[in-house]
Amino acid sequence: MKSNDSIHQFDEAITLTYDDGVFTGKTSAPYANMVGPFGGVIAAQLLNAVMEHPKRQGEPISITINYAAPIKDGEFTIKATPARTNRSTQHWVIELSQDDDILATATAVTASRRETWSAPDLEAPTVPSPNQIPSLPTTGLPDWVSNYDIKLIRGFPDILAENPPENEDSETVQWIEDHPKRPLDALSLASMSDAFFPRVFIRRNKMLPASTVSLTIYFHADEATFANYGAQAVLGHARALRFYNGYFDQTAEMWSQDGKLLASSTQIVYYRD
Amino acid sequence: MKSNDSIHQFDEAITLTYDDGVFTGKTSAPYANMVGPFGGVIAAQLLNAVMEHPKRQGEPISITINYAAPIKDGEFTIKATPARTNRSTQHWVIELSQDDDILATATAVTASRRETWSAPDLEAPTVPSPNQIPSLPTTGLPDWVSNYDIKLIRGFPDILAENPPENEDSETVQWIEDHPKRPLDALSLASMSDAFFPRVFIRRNKMLPASTVSLTIYFHADEATFANYGAQAVLGHARALRFYNGYFDQTAEMWSQDGKLLASSTQIVYYRD
Repeated sequence: MKSNDSIHQFDEAITLTYDDGVFTGKTSAPYANMVGPFGGVIAAQLLNAVMEHPKRQGEPISITINYAAPIKDGEFTIKATPARTNRSTQHWVIELSQDDDILATATAVTASRRETWSAPDLEAPTVPSPNQIPSLPTTGLPDWVSNYDIKLIRGFPDILAENPPENEDSETVQWIEDHPKRPLDALSLASMSDAFFPRVFIRRNKMLPASTVSLTIYFHADEATFANYGAQAVLGHARALRFYNGYFDQTAEMWSQDGKLLASSTQIVYYRD
Repeated sequence: MKSNDSIHQFDEAITLTYDDGVFTGKTSAPYANMVGPFGGVIAAQLLNAVMEHPKRQGEPISITINYAAPIKDGEFTIKATPARTNRSTQHWVIELSQDDDILATATAVTASRRETWSAPDLEAPTVPSPNQIPSLPTTGLPDWVSNYDIKLIRGFPDILAENPPENEDSETVQWIEDHPKRPLDALSLASMSDAFFPRVFIRRNKMLPASTVSLTIYFHADEATFANYGAQAVLGHARALRFYNGYFDQTAEMWSQDGKLLASSTQIVYYRD
């Protein structure tokens, strides 16, 4: 099922209606994952409740999403509460429920930025441009992947091989953009920050049960950045630091085509052997 | 003011009393920062509300703390709620208040781990052992620093120089342990994960207004790890990725003396020029 011509399927997926302090949304068939919805779109739905909230001030600085239990196909509600509003920052507490069961919690910070001394402290990876790399075929992959054009530079499991050897590390470098194209914003950038295959797939070179427990995204891009960026692809770089008895972490950076860090993120992921 | 002989000042600082679903704690003079308490101890106090909660299951996997406003000297209350309890994971929502004002929010995940395939994916930095490095003098630094024995290997502002040049990057590598010594646990590890000076101090080589807005810590250590570790120093490694119009991020790793990753963390920090 694809969206109609008038609205991008990502915008359709994150649409919320607001009534009496509560947002209502629904799961999106195009963004289905192996179990429940793709976590990146859940992150965008939770962030969108802040963005659409009548009391919101400022732009997204950070969001942490805790995936407490699978979301069933259908409607859900989101409550977003400004727990604290300061002069330039606002702190949000968010929860997503179905039938009064809390299935995801989140906190977010929005803020008004002002121009001040700024500098990069990490350099972007040196990579070929997106038009030099073929798109990842999406056959056999979860539905949500078809909503992205992913161009892998490094780090993807050898899913067609039988008993391939383990990889030395879990690093992935990939270009990613919405398919069809859509101008980048904080919501789509949040979703793309989760659009890496679980690090344990890369390291072990096979698919295993794995699911994100908690995801944190920091934004280094603001409305002016997005307005200038348009629908260009974003360079994603992800690696695990340690796999330990059922949980591993993943750090990831999302870079612009001109080498600016747009977002950094980290997540902790449950895995089974 | 130092603690008495019977209890370590860190344990005194994080002591909470539980009554009718609400924890009460108080700010700790030894852990005072420039404005309000040291954020590491606030993180430990919030995590301790989960640890001491009668419904808690499992060990800490992750915690995110949002510092919404300065905490005034004196008593505060913490409400920790298990939003969702699964078979092996539990999701917590936490808030810290004074006089009904929410000053910090947090979410945490606890879980029962089981032995499974495990592996490092990042190597520990190669550094001199702690006994080869002098302790950082604490004169002129905020009070909380005196509760740690910090041995700097790299990356500290040249606070005594006049107009020192900017540093090329914001990286810090340091050994840290409680002073006096205290066996390491998830609570002290959480606090030490925030015991880096703000990255903007290192990069610009001077002190500037800066305060953590949100801090996330992932634990790769469990009770067995801590029981074996005792009171050895921990190797901390921190760097910023980007400073952009008032907010920068910091990623940090905490390593054991035998090169195992005990915790990874990330924070977003407000700064002014």
